[in-house]
Amino acid sequence: MSSTFGTVFFVTTWGESHGKGVGAVLEGCPAGLPITEEEIQAALDRRRPGQNKLTTPRNEKDQVRIMSGVFEGKTTGTPISFVVENEDQHSNDYEDIKKWYRPGHADLCYDLKYGFRDYRGGGRSSARETIGRVAAGEVARKLLKTVNQTEILAWVSSVGNIDCPPVDLDTISMEQIEASPVRCPDPATSAAMEQEVLDARKNKDSVGGIVTLLVRKPPIGLGEPVFDKLDAKLAQAMLSIPACKGFEIGSGFSAARMRGSQHNDTIYFDGREYHTKTNNAGGVLGGISNGEYIVCRLAFKPTATLLQAQDTASNNGENGQLSAKGRHDPCVALRAPVIVESMAALVLADMYLQQKRNCL
Amino acid sequence: MSSTFGTVFFVTTWGESHGKGVGAVLEGCPAGLPITEEEIQAALDRRRPGQNKLTTPRNEKDQVRIMSGVFEGKTTGTPISFVVENEDQHSNDYEDIKKWYRPGHADLCYDLKYGFRDYRGGGRSSARETIGRVAAGEVARKLLKTVNQTEILAWVSSVGNIDCPPVDLDTISMEQIEASPVRCPDPATSAAMEQEVLDARKNKDSVGGIVTLLVRKPPIGLGEPVFDKLDAKLAQAMLSIPACKGFEIGSGFSAARMRGSQHNDTIYFDGREYHTKTNNAGGVLGGISNGEYIVCRLAFKPTATLLQAQDTASNNGENGQLSAKGRHDPCVALRAPVIVESMAALVLADMYLQQKRNCL
Amino acid sequence: MSSTFGTVFFVTTWGESHGKGVGAVLEGCPAGLPITEEEIQAALDRRRPGQNKLTTPRNEKDQVRIMSGVFEGKTTGTPISFVVENEDQHSNDYEDIKKWYRPGHADLCYDLKYGFRDYRGGGRSSARETIGRVAAGEVARKLLKTVNQTEILAWVSSVGNIDCPPVDLDTISMEQIEASPVRCPDPATSAAMEQEVLDARKNKDSVGGIVTLLVRKPPIGLGEPVFDKLDAKLAQAMLSIPACKGFEIGSGFSAARMRGSQHNDTIYFDGREYHTKTNNAGGVLGGISNGEYIVCRLAFKPTATLLQAQDTASNNGENGQLSAKGRHDPCVALRAPVIVESMAALVLADMYLQQKRNCL
Amino acid sequence: MSSTFGTVFFVTTWGESHGKGVGAVLEGCPAGLPITEEEIQAALDRRRPGQNKLTTPRNEKDQVRIMSGVFEGKTTGTPISFVVENEDQHSNDYEDIKKWYRPGHADLCYDLKYGFRDYRGGGRSSARETIGRVAAGEVARKLLKTVNQTEILAWVSSVGNIDCPPVDLDTISMEQIEASPVRCPDPATSAAMEQEVLDARKNKDSVGGIVTLLVRKPPIGLGEPVFDKLDAKLAQAMLSIPACKGFEIGSGFSAARMRGSQHNDTIYFDGREYHTKTNNAGGVLGGISNGEYIVCRLAFKPTATLLQAQDTASNNGENGQLSAKGRHDPCVALRAPVIVESMAALVLADMYLQQKRNCL
Repeated sequence: MSSTFGTVFFVTTWGESHGKGVGAVLEGCPAGLPITEEEIQAALDRRRPGQNKLTTPRNEKDQVRIMSGVFEGKTTGTPISFVVENEDQHSNDYEDIKKWYRPGHADLCYDLKYGFRDYRGGGRSSARETIGRVAAGEVARKLLKTVNQTEILAWVSSVGNIDCPPVDLDTISMEQIEASPVRCPDPATSAAMEQEVLDARKNKDSVGGIVTLLVRKPPIGLGEPVFDKLDAKLAQAMLSIPACKGFEIGSGFSAARMRGSQHNDTIYFDGREYHTKTNNAGGVLGGISNGEYIVCRLAFKPTATLLQAQDTASNNGENGQLSAKGRHDPCVALRAPVIVESMAALVLADMYLQQKRNCL
Repeated sequence: MSSTFGTVFFVTTWGESHGKGVGAVLEGCPAGLPITEEEIQAALDRRRPGQNKLTTPRNEKDQVRIMSGVFEGKTTGTPISFVVENEDQHSNDYEDIKKWYRPGHADLCYDLKYGFRDYRGGGRSSARETIGRVAAGEVARKLLKTVNQTEILAWVSSVGNIDCPPVDLDTISMEQIEASPVRCPDPATSAAMEQEVLDARKNKDSVGGIVTLLVRKPPIGLGEPVFDKLDAKLAQAMLSIPACKGFEIGSGFSAARMRGSQHNDTIYFDGREYHTKTNNAGGVLGGISNGEYIVCRLAFKPTATLLQAQDTASNNGENGQLSAKGRHDPCVALRAPVIVESMAALVLADMYLQQKRNCL
Repeated sequence: MSSTFGTVFFVTTWGESHGKGVGAVLEGCPAGLPITEEEIQAALDRRRPGQNKLTTPRNEKDQVRIMSGVFEGKTTGTPISFVVENEDQHSNDYEDIKKWYRPGHADLCYDLKYGFRDYRGGGRSSARETIGRVAAGEVARKLLKTVNQTEILAWVSSVGNIDCPPVDLDTISMEQIEASPVRCPDPATSAAMEQEVLDARKNKDSVGGIVTLLVRKPPIGLGEPVFDKLDAKLAQAMLSIPACKGFEIGSGFSAARMRGSQHNDTIYFDGREYHTKTNNAGGVLGGISNGEYIVCRLAFKPTATLLQAQDTASNNGENGQLSAKGRHDPCVALRAPVIVESMAALVLADMYLQQKRNCL
Repeated sequence: MSSTFGTVFFVTTWGESHGKGVGAVLEGCPAGLPITEEEIQAALDRRRPGQNKLTTPRNEKDQVRIMSGVFEGKTTGTPISFVVENEDQHSNDYEDIKKWYRPGHADLCYDLKYGFRDYRGGGRSSARETIGRVAAGEVARKLLKTVNQTEILAWVSSVGNIDCPPVDLDTISMEQIEASPVRCPDPATSAAMEQEVLDARKNKDSVGGIVTLLVRKPPIGLGEPVFDKLDAKLAQAMLSIPACKGFEIGSGFSAARMRGSQHNDTIYFDGREYHTKTNNAGGVLGGISNGEYIVCRLAFKPTATLLQAQDTASNNGENGQLSAKGRHDPCVALRAPVIVESMAALVLADMYLQQKRNCL
């Protein structure tokens, strides 16, 4: 059970969906960074369910407390502990899933791996686990903003077969993204996506989506070759988010269709620094950031829990059916952007601190 | 510079393209595994350039020596050190790239990161670095085969716009794959791919490709939630391979287009064990292997080095042109399969050994 | 700030003396181990100050909550989070030490290292940090007891110049130890030590001591050569306890005075297993446990905080005097045994789980 | 088998006494440090046996090659690989120890741990393993010298019951130490120690000793509380050296005899920086270096291998006798100083690089 992520700036998350609480401990944050509970809370509020009619009506306040590591408004260099107590638990909603393995879920795998599991609300595999990531990720984001004015944004670029047209990477803002109930910055596309999600819900079904990640003004020189390449760690970070099935950076899968003469990004020196004319690389070459925008795309599968009946097997080997009850987002991609941003921030902050020791 | 990969079964690779040699140290291999230099050499021979007209004519023997950790034909539980001395170096082929940054390469990034670099043949970012991965990966493959009869195969499923039709995952064999000069098991597609690569070379160009990875009979229960999910570590492993730009598992990016009712794999109990009727999950749910085939697809960009002139900048800020000389594969994807298999084996062996301590 | 200890079974502690609380997250515990809050609480009660007239009158309840990782009385294999809220804080007792560096304390070093510090009650360097170690250590102790009937005991063997005569390692029990207010199992010595501590207190002074650690029935084969030898990790574990200045195992420093013919422990086979006739090795050879008792001795310096005036410097470069106020143990060694046992348990449990993968 | 040491600057050693060779890979060294094979060789020559009549006549050249990571005389930031090929092997000297477990050695423990072992010359537990430590340690020493003029020295301060009188820590030099065949800087004591060693050898016996470590001008603020305290990692590092049984820092075990008023080191500000009037702390408080000399003492047991007959058991359960043959140092402490210095350098360099990220 590796609930720890990062090398020198690393977070450990803990907590089950219906246990006493969830949280995280963040280690390796430098001393002297200003951070408040309010900043962390604001990020958690973006992640929280119950925000609008498209997400689950489960209404948790997810109130965070910083238990340690911050003194007089600044980090002290010691571990920062975040605790969120669980509330609003409907444990009896989940009695069926004690017995029947939910298709598309980790239930069976946890039993195969550990011999038994906390079946209430998905236990450790619940999306509530990501609360700890977002809390720690917000510290990472603040660090990057403080040292390099780095900006990290993610939005929903596809829902089912509805695709967002290209957005202006220079100007897209969090305000634009958060103004949309589906977190798509293009208003027309947003409306169509909303219909798609409502249609899925109406049919007791769910739908997949794609999230695009953008990092503006990343520090240059980040990424540790060979195995901890910046894109490799971003890939791990993203695939570690529940329901993520694919990752590409820059040209991604379309690179496989190209000739080298099309794909290579021409390098030039503008008198002050090096840049490339195109950005098929997505801001990373040889695993190292070159200062161009980092752009990635992430595929999210449709929510596994469906309110319709599904064939499945039980923990004592019966074959039968399960109809889920309870409260479930019909499209997990819609709540993913802040988690994606948090994971990207954790990777970049860790790489930034690692890079501080690479030159004499 | 993280040249170390793995948690309890971990490898450190070392070496530059034109230094004295390349190699790896593998730690954490259990005692008692039979392994020989011949087995390692056979894997390296699959990776080696100069095998046919489609790959670079650079002809290195890449003769491996096991320096430690094996006694009387079996591993002792101590570190296994592999050394391959470099030969056949044409260092003068690379004089131009001391000055001019190759587009699509890591040259500029290494200078930005470390202040200077070993420019000969790409130094550490050379594909020769993967020799150490393949040597260690072969031990991992042997371990998995010994304990679970696991089979790991990878092949070229696309070159440019030429796609291999679906293959029979139950029967595809390494013999079929290696019989093709482009490592595509379908003979007709193989011939078309070969033409595509020759056409790219004729035009002093290069071309991208896709590699498919298949793991048959993976141990069940592998993958450490939360951050070291099996698919997350596979994603990192694959993106760490030079030129890889994308990763997907199971339904991958197409999952984003689906409804949940299409995507969920129905679980059933066959009287002996649990299985799923479809495999959109690609063998991994909640980050844990469920015993179904693990299937991933990896995008490789076209080779960055081109024999045609390309605009670029120099290390002293001039803007100009570079025409590469030397020997270069027009399609890096063709040599990728054995590296992909090795990285998959390293991930799975590490997860297998981690799983040994998850239950009391 | 490495607040994380262990390789595959590892704990992260967090919290400052006068922040909101202290705690720990324990990762890597196998699923299925029975553990209760009561067991953890009982260990914390042994560590707690305010137990008798020899320790500080600070009276905290140190009530622990297990927030995650335990379900229906058993570990689930997921992270176990312990939270203890702080109470009974007299922050104003500590106003002086905001300015004046306490001799023998970490105050100055924290300022030199991090630029500033949480000065209240020693902040992170407070002995309250060890609460997290004891909570996690109790899980480790339970694991070792469950799998191998391992027993771990520590006691005070010297206070100042008063030394405990040799004890019977086969029969010494926690009851004997805890029956003594100074945790010395020999009643006569215990009484003399008590006088020594009271004498130090009467003189507004403090006194050092030695703690002996004994592990009965350790699992055989534990310890990972080369750098994570069992004795090497025990040494790190013990020196990481506040005020510990020395570590020795088996014959320890007296080994340096011996001839090899005196020192070597004769090996014999008793028909069932291998043993040694003597135990100068202290149960560890080549860094690996051989099954004999593990015996170590640890030196603790006298408490640094004194109620008498001491010369020192301030954080703005003045030279002056500081008279500590507040509540302080005159002999830190007296509360050390449960911490020593906990650290030993953490090392052994980690090594036990590592050993599970060393053979095929 | 943890053959890796360090957190961000870390070394992996490999190799058995009578395999093809021994070596190390050093990762995390910053780019730009000047280093040559000659500097590494000079350190290895201090470690090498066969230097005089007091050490084993085994005469190996231990010729090191730097295989990677150094280009044009400077480190590149990539892994530095050291290879030393084994020569001068008398494998038949060791036939007896295939069967009979040597008392005081790791033979039995390796068999208990791994099921079998490379019995030739102690295999992995041979002192030849330390070659890799010394090679990597020399890079660490160069780094510390370059960035902070740090000096690291170790010498033999006791052999048996012969103790070196206090030395002047301000002036003691490597020249003084290396001028003595027993590496004791006091000429009269050196002569007495030499007699003691020769006497042990004459009696087919061996003798223990104590090594003192001194670090002058250590960087300030090194050491990562809580678990990776500077003294805790030094303790691990030293106990990981073969035959080391004890570690103390500063006042060490004598601290347990003191009152706090004697022990506390008075802090003063000299107008430029903070110092202490005494150094009972040994340069480390709260696990962090305060800039005073770091002083430690290490106990080494007598060499386990004796040329006289010793009772022991065999690998098939017989009880009998073993008389060792071959070439063995009668006092391992004499060759320990360069290894002690190397381990100290590895710890300090790692801590130095970790500290680079502790402040914003």
